[in-house]
Amino acid sequence: MKVAYKIWIDQNGKAFGDGPYELLKGVEKTASLHKVAHQMGMAYSKAWRLIRTTEQRLGFSLLDRKVGGKSGGGSKITPQAKEVMLCYGRFREEANGAIERIYQKHFSSLNTSPKRKRS
Amino acid sequence: MKVAYKIWIDQNGKAFGDGPYELLKGVEKTASLHKVAHQMGMAYSKAWRLIRTTEQRLGFSLLDRKVGGKSGGGSKITPQAKEVMLCYGRFREEANGAIERIYQKHFSSLNTSPKRKRS
Repeated sequence: MKVAYKIWIDQNGKAFGDGPYELLKGVEKTASLHKVAHQMGMAYSKAWRLIRTTEQRLGFSLLDRKVGGKSGGGSKITPQAKEVMLCYGRFREEANGAIERIYQKHFSSLNTSPKRKRS
Repeated sequence: MKVAYKIWIDQNGKAFGDGPYELLKGVEKTASLHKVAHQMGMAYSKAWRLIRTTEQRLGFSLLDRKVGGKSGGGSKITPQAKEVMLCYGRFREEANGAIERIYQKHFSSLNTSPKRKRS
């Protein structure tokens, strides 16, 4: 028995969760949404739509896209994206810990004495 | 902007969440899964399947069913159901509060200064 959950930020619908967070963390590292989508086994078109929808719901840009140039283009996260990633990353970490702790507090006694159904 | 989440107990799959909890709370009050399903706008067959799946995943019975008799049958929650409901109810209440508090802690500064996308 264990606790499970999905958690996200809602604004005009599902606005920001683990998906966009992981994509943006990857872009921060690699400067390429193409690379990150590939690494995550996600179609580029899907990654792009996810970022686009997230931008629309949040109301600000997440990626600055450079097209072409010497380095062949790429993406950079915006300062606003960085800010929301910081908030979300800290929020997720603390929420993960709290949910697990509260689950243990209320369910540990139930866990130790499973009552099987007669069959 | 607000936080949103789904939370449940996993055991061999999604085992116990708000759905079974609300159904069982209703049966505790009305002694009838029929009545509760109707009140919740849920088909009886769906309510019954949900209880059945939950029992299979948890490994114990949740409802004692009386068939016929002077009162025309009905359902009673089992002691094990009562136990898991108590754990879950307390867990949910504390987890709700914690998630909201942690969200406010990390996102309140972002909320107060929305940066709109230029368009």
